[in-house]
Parts: sequence; structure tokens; C-alpha cells
Amino acid sequence: MIESDIKIPTTRNAITTFNMIIEAALEKFYEGGYHGTTIQAITQHAGVAAGTFYLYFPSKMSLYKHILITLSHNIRKEIASKVALKETRLEKEREGIKAFVQYVQQNPQMYNVIWESLYIDRGLFKEYYESFARRYVKGLSHAQAQGEIDTLDVEVTAYVLMGITNFIGLKVLLDLGENNEDLEHIIDSVMMLLERGLFTRK
Amino acid sequence: MIESDIKIPTTRNAITTFNMIIEAALEKFYEGGYHGTTIQAITQHAGVAAGTFYLYFPSKMSLYKHILITLSHNIRKEIASKVALKETRLEKEREGIKAFVQYVQQNPQMYNVIWESLYIDRGLFKEYYESFARRYVKGLSHAQAQGEIDTLDVEVTAYVLMGITNFIGLKVLLDLGENNEDLEHIIDSVMMLLERGLFTRK
Repeated sequence: MIESDIKIPTTRNAITTFNMIIEAALEKFYEGGYHGTTIQAITQHAGVAAGTFYLYFPSKMSLYKHILITLSHNIRKEIASKVALKETRLEKEREGIKAFVQYVQQNPQMYNVIWESLYIDRGLFKEYYESFARRYVKGLSHAQAQGEIDTLDVEVTAYVLMGITNFIGLKVLLDLGENNEDLEHIIDSVMMLLERGLFTRK
Repeated sequence: MIESDIKIPTTRNAITTFNMIIEAALEKFYEGGYHGTTIQAITQHAGVAAGTFYLYFPSKMSLYKHILITLSHNIRKEIASKVALKETRLEKEREGIKAFVQYVQQNPQMYNVIWESLYIDRGLFKEYYESFARRYVKGLSHAQAQGEIDTLDVEVTAYVLMGITNFIGLKVLLDLGENNEDLEHIIDSVMMLLERGLFTRK
């Protein structure tokens, strides 16, 4: 678990200010990157006094970690709520991929925020994906115990599915290649591979 | 195609200096990121005079693009040379994944260099993956015409396979989760999914 060391505000005014700082940071990080953004640039963009920042965040790193934790929490909650409505693992995978891509479309800065951890602190990147994978492994192990899936290694399978989902999300978000408006068709193609494999049977 | 605007050196001394600048830049970018690295820091680290940089590179961006083009070229050459030795598409996929992961292990800064294009110029990121995908699509289309694979959309399949390969590479490189020393087992797990699909048949 990535640890947070921020001070969560409690009054309405403080919460507003806190959220303004986070919104401003998201925009500035997206524009100029973490290393290219100063605390002063964030407070200026948020329209708050420079000292206000330190009421909540000991450092720029704390703010970044808070953003990463929040994003991670929101993605999982979003996917989990959609996936819970489905019965079979097959339906759950389909719904999970779709929920992820739609989340990405609504939060285009997502990859920038997560992958920037590679440059800020590799441990954060590692922890982000490992904790995502741990939850995935749980679901896949359950499906395997139920005889719904058949895999040599559930953990490798979790990373395979995360890789697929992340690259389909990138394709749609950045409009890589063709036909990115038809999300159902894209997901049909992915699911056909997950259902039958890629190679024809001899 | 990402365009380069650098001056390629021709004399032995100039080539040595040129390569020293590139090596130094790779290290500095890996440490502090593109935005966090100045041209001065690069020339200092390379042990060359500040003005030397401009003999070859009009800007830091030109240097970064050159590194990205070179990396892209090297990965493809490496994979292509290994894959060419295999007959079937199934063997080619297996070999391609393995060659990619081994390349990553020998060039641990690879993800940092490529993904940093998201923060430097999204067009570069887009072009990098689109041109990788175009080549992949060619190979997959050929395999489909030969009846070796069966897919709804070869382009989506290219991104699926790129996603799998990239995340397996990340898992091994950053030691995400367990059992990352046994590359053959990891690739066996991936290939089982590509051969049979993930879900059991009713």
C-alpha cells in the first residue's frame, strides 16, 4: 500500500481549497510533468496563497502520492462496481475492460499520472501495479477454482490482462491506428482472442 | 516516421564524442527525466565542452528524438532477426515475446525513454506505437491469409499482443510479483492463453 502523509481537510472551505490545489496540480503535471512543475506554479494556477499548500501537503511528492492513491482507488471502485453486476468470469472480463477504457476516456491524464511514477519513484510504480495485480489474481484464482478459466499461472495471466487492457485503453485514448470510435467491436476482438485463442487448431 | 534533424558525425573522434553525449544523456534522462536534465548537465556528464553538443544536435529535443529512433530501430532489428529464424506464426510470437523481454533486460532504461515521450511530445509516443503496430499488422495479416491465426481485427490483435509483451517485460524487469527468474515458464503461460484462450469450453 502506498502511504499518504497529507492532512485531509475537514471544513467546507478547506476542502474547496484542497481540491483546487489538486485540480491545479493535475493540470500542471499533465502539461509540464512532475519535475517541470514547481509548488509555486501549482498554487498560482490554483489561485491560492503559496503557504496554503503546506497546510495540507508536506511536499510536492506527498501531493503526487495523494493523486496516485486517489486515482488508483477511483479506477478500482469504478471497475469493481461494474464487474460486480456480472455473473460469469467471461462477462466480468468484458465489463472490466470496457469500464477501464471508459474511465480512461473520462480521465485522459491517467496514464501520465501513473507512468510518471517511473521517473519520480520506481517503488510507487511497482506498488501501483503489484497491488492492482493482487486483486486481479484473487478474482482469477476464484474463477479457476470454479473451473471457469484454465491457466498455467494466474499471476502471469493477471499481467497479460492488465497489458491488454492498458494498451487497448491507450489505443482508444490516443486514437492509435483505425476504428477507435467502435469500442464494442474492439472489445469483441479482444474477447474472441480470450475465448478461443489466436491460433487456428490443426 | 519520426524525423531526425541531427548531424551524424563521420570521423572516428567525432563519432566517439557523439556517442559519449548520447550515453550521458541516456543516464541523465533515466535519473532526472528529460525536463529535469539540462544540456549543460549532459555535456558535463559526458566530459565534453558545452558547445560540442550543438555540433550534432540543434536542441535537447533533437537528441531525445535521436535516442527514441535508435531504440525503436534496435528493438525491431533484434526481434526481427530472432523471429525470422522461426517457421510458424506461433513460434514467431513466442520468439518475439522472448526477444522483447530479453532486450528490455539488457536495456533497462527502455520504458523510461519511450514512455517519457508522453510528457515531451504525445505525437512521438503515438508515432512510436503506430509504426510498431503497422509492422505487426503486416505479419499478422500474412498469418491470417495463411490460415494460421483467426481474429476479428488484426490491428486490435496487434495492440493486444503489444500490451501483453510490454507488461510481461515490465513484470520481469521490475520484478513485479513472483517467479520472475523463470522466463520460459512465464512465456509458456502467455502462449497457453494465445493457443487455447483463457476460458474453459462448456
